[in-house]
Amino acid sequence: MLDKLDLTKRTDTEKYEATLEGYIDRLSVLQRTLREKKIPTIIVIEGWNASGITMTVHEIVHALDPRGFTLHPIDRPSEEERAHPFLWRFWLRIPPKGRIAIFARSWYTRVIAEENDKPSWETSLKGRAREINTFERLLADDGTVILKFFLHITKEEQKSRLEGREGNPLTACQVTPSIWNLHRHYDDALPIFDDFIQKTDTPYAPWTLVEATDPRYAILKVYATIIKTLEKTCEAADKGKMKKPKPLEMIKPKKNPVRRRSRPDKVYTREGLDEALSQLQVEMLELHYHLFKRKIPLIIVYEGWDAAGKGGNITRVTRFMNPLGYYVVPVSAPTEHEKEYHYLRRFTDHFPIGGDIAIFDRSWYGRVLVERVEKITPEADWQRAYQEINEMEEEFVYSSHGGIIKFWLEISKDEQLKRFNQRAEDPLKKYKITDEDWRNREKWDQYDEAIDEMLARTSTPIAPWTVVESDDKGFARVKALKTIIAAAQRLL
Amino acid sequence: MLDKLDLTKRTDTEKYEATLEGYIDRLSVLQRTLREKKIPTIIVIEGWNASGITMTVHEIVHALDPRGFTLHPIDRPSEEERAHPFLWRFWLRIPPKGRIAIFARSWYTRVIAEENDKPSWETSLKGRAREINTFERLLADDGTVILKFFLHITKEEQKSRLEGREGNPLTACQVTPSIWNLHRHYDDALPIFDDFIQKTDTPYAPWTLVEATDPRYAILKVYATIIKTLEKTCEAADKGKMKKPKPLEMIKPKKNPVRRRSRPDKVYTREGLDEALSQLQVEMLELHYHLFKRKIPLIIVYEGWDAAGKGGNITRVTRFMNPLGYYVVPVSAPTEHEKEYHYLRRFTDHFPIGGDIAIFDRSWYGRVLVERVEKITPEADWQRAYQEINEMEEEFVYSSHGGIIKFWLEISKDEQLKRFNQRAEDPLKKYKITDEDWRNREKWDQYDEAIDEMLARTSTPIAPWTVVESDDKGFARVKALKTIIAAAQRLL
Repeated sequence: MLDKLDLTKRTDTEKYEATLEGYIDRLSVLQRTLREKKIPTIIVIEGWNASGITMTVHEIVHALDPRGFTLHPIDRPSEEERAHPFLWRFWLRIPPKGRIAIFARSWYTRVIAEENDKPSWETSLKGRAREINTFERLLADDGTVILKFFLHITKEEQKSRLEGREGNPLTACQVTPSIWNLHRHYDDALPIFDDFIQKTDTPYAPWTLVEATDPRYAILKVYATIIKTLEKTCEAADKGKMKKPKPLEMIKPKKNPVRRRSRPDKVYTREGLDEALSQLQVEMLELHYHLFKRKIPLIIVYEGWDAAGKGGNITRVTRFMNPLGYYVVPVSAPTEHEKEYHYLRRFTDHFPIGGDIAIFDRSWYGRVLVERVEKITPEADWQRAYQEINEMEEEFVYSSHGGIIKFWLEISKDEQLKRFNQRAEDPLKKYKITDEDWRNREKWDQYDEAIDEMLARTSTPIAPWTVVESDDKGFARVKALKTIIAAAQRLL
Repeated sequence: MLDKLDLTKRTDTEKYEATLEGYIDRLSVLQRTLREKKIPTIIVIEGWNASGITMTVHEIVHALDPRGFTLHPIDRPSEEERAHPFLWRFWLRIPPKGRIAIFARSWYTRVIAEENDKPSWETSLKGRAREINTFERLLADDGTVILKFFLHITKEEQKSRLEGREGNPLTACQVTPSIWNLHRHYDDALPIFDDFIQKTDTPYAPWTLVEATDPRYAILKVYATIIKTLEKTCEAADKGKMKKPKPLEMIKPKKNPVRRRSRPDKVYTREGLDEALSQLQVEMLELHYHLFKRKIPLIIVYEGWDAAGKGGNITRVTRFMNPLGYYVVPVSAPTEHEKEYHYLRRFTDHFPIGGDIAIFDRSWYGRVLVERVEKITPEADWQRAYQEINEMEEEFVYSSHGGIIKFWLEISKDEQLKRFNQRAEDPLKKYKITDEDWRNREKWDQYDEAIDEMLARTSTPIAPWTVVESDDKGFARVKALKTIIAAAQRLL
């Protein structure tokens, strides 16, 4: 694709200035409209070294109210970012509703730079392209406009620009030996960029290739494309015709492969329980140590009926972990601030780095449980969530070589009633039971259906659900611990 | 102080277990009470290497609901943390209302470790002690309970424990050569720790020294101290007798040294303005480059009357900066989430790292302007804020060698009316004017008084206010830019 560009294109100064002024006004109005309509926008500026990325960003930013955009210059990841999955740092930087995020370089440069030394370069790039497409699709489906630009110049042009910069004391230090080294590999890099651009050129996040020999021509092309796209978006929003995300191809779940039961096979005596737990404790501590040593991250998700014993189970299980190596993320309804972002961001934010165990007390599965049953989220959105969740979990496992354990704590309807009543009667536990719990109980059947569908659609080979029969709390604790131990052993 | 401890103290197993059980129950109840009363708690566990910090943390954590505390193991700072002022990473980790933050090691170990190689070791430590005391006082004055423990063992005990760890394959890797090196310097370190503990032992954040030869004795002492303090706190809260922060010694401001005027001396012609600005633009770009090269951070605060032209001034000033090197932080009313924390945290969060310019469009001064006039914050709290703000700004400058520029954009009451009316009539600008603006205008005199007091009390030598006469927007832009340039030159 890149080699088809006509790099001789030029714009003369007069035309440039006249056109630019009009563009600045239009983009400035558009920014306000996007804010009012609460549409988030991502603008990615990529290109060769010395192709004019900074200058282009500078010119676009002129049109914008500085309070309504954020510019993210993307360089090498920090230690912390490096310890997380590849896309984690970009999830953190997605724009909230109504805001524009401009990326001066982005996940694209980072992929090429960071996968460079992998032995199976081609396979890595293919995997990353798939990941990136998923990431961009998730955002686009949520209403984010994504615009991507690649500034293209020839090898000769690059050389003359680098030499020019070397001659200027203000810019000389930018031209490092590694920049020259990259320049020498221009011809090798060209097909790689080209291929990666093709692999990530999607209807929801298309690339615009920009002939950048003449910076004025390049800037106007970028401006014009942004304005055209955003004007279309705003028009569509006015007519209520925002593009609906294409429904994903749903794999019709077979009969739910995960059998739900609340009664355990076995009930421990007090002594039997203590013995079982203390044996597991030793194993767990040792495994935790090895996970830590080998920097393997682990996510444990707890979902379950109200009063199924999530809190107690977590407390007991964590007793056997080194407190420096785990943390619990309690999940409740999203705050106003969190609602401004894609619903998955508030979870990815807390994903563990290598060696840590993150325990989610409730999780992203709220999307297909409470948000479905209480009609908080439109059906099209929660229907899409099954695949989005599977993809997010897959990305985590693929990218960080970590593990995900998901517990569904099942109790019978009778057992729940018994526990509710016990709580209501006990002054120390009364605070645990609210009217909401009783209201949820009335919707038992609706939740039942939602749970079944969730288990069927999101029990994947890399992140399967484990049903924990929780009518007996002792059994539930042993089973949870055994499951964690088995999963950790598989990871080592 | 440390040498006065009786390190032979012991607790036998039977007494330990009986006592511990009772303690766990009491702390567990206390945690819930603190949550209900929305009291934040900080527990710092410090001590020698191998003194049992991890084990002590582990035992305390047993009593706690994992959903209500966060454990912060503090190790070397990350690159990003290192680029920020020393306390920045700890500000990020302060607990919200009702939550417990446990620090396994803390700012104390970090001070000793990071100041170690400074040529003027003693002076640095003194400076850090003052900073830490300020930090802790700010939090305590805001209602945070702070408990600090130092686990003490002898050099011989440390040696035998390190040898024991070396003999165990699960712990051998913890005992690095640098740990042995620190061990050899035990006798040098003792008076330094001792001195630093004394310097930071304050009524609002007292130290508890713990005889840690016998881990059981140490754990019980830590537990007992935590329980006693928290029970007292809860009792006081019940009686509505929470300790009021001691009023600070207020330096009575002299007659306001910062004269406010809205009419500039000079009004530029259109050409004169263009010429002045384009000259300054060149200077600004170059200075910005040098700030970046030398990794000097700069904070620019914009405050001013409604319609004084903050937004326009920021837009014009930033045109002359490299977009990769600055960002604008728009400040509005705090979100529910932000209200859970100390009021300064949502600003320190955005403080710039070396080489960046952070422009605050409104700022922490809202505490003594809108929050004072609208009675959002009790008088005692905003009265205290003048000093708190001065201290925070001082800490930033002292700790990051950066600069702070503060602009007050002054317009006359007539000019404001004129601009309000213009906005109301212009369909493109109408959105900028709200009922709130008119209501604020009615309180002009109250704001006038608050502004005077703010300028008088917070115009410090390291972070002085600059009044920008803004009846003429052109003049205001030139003056802002000139002020920034002059400040940047002084920093270089």
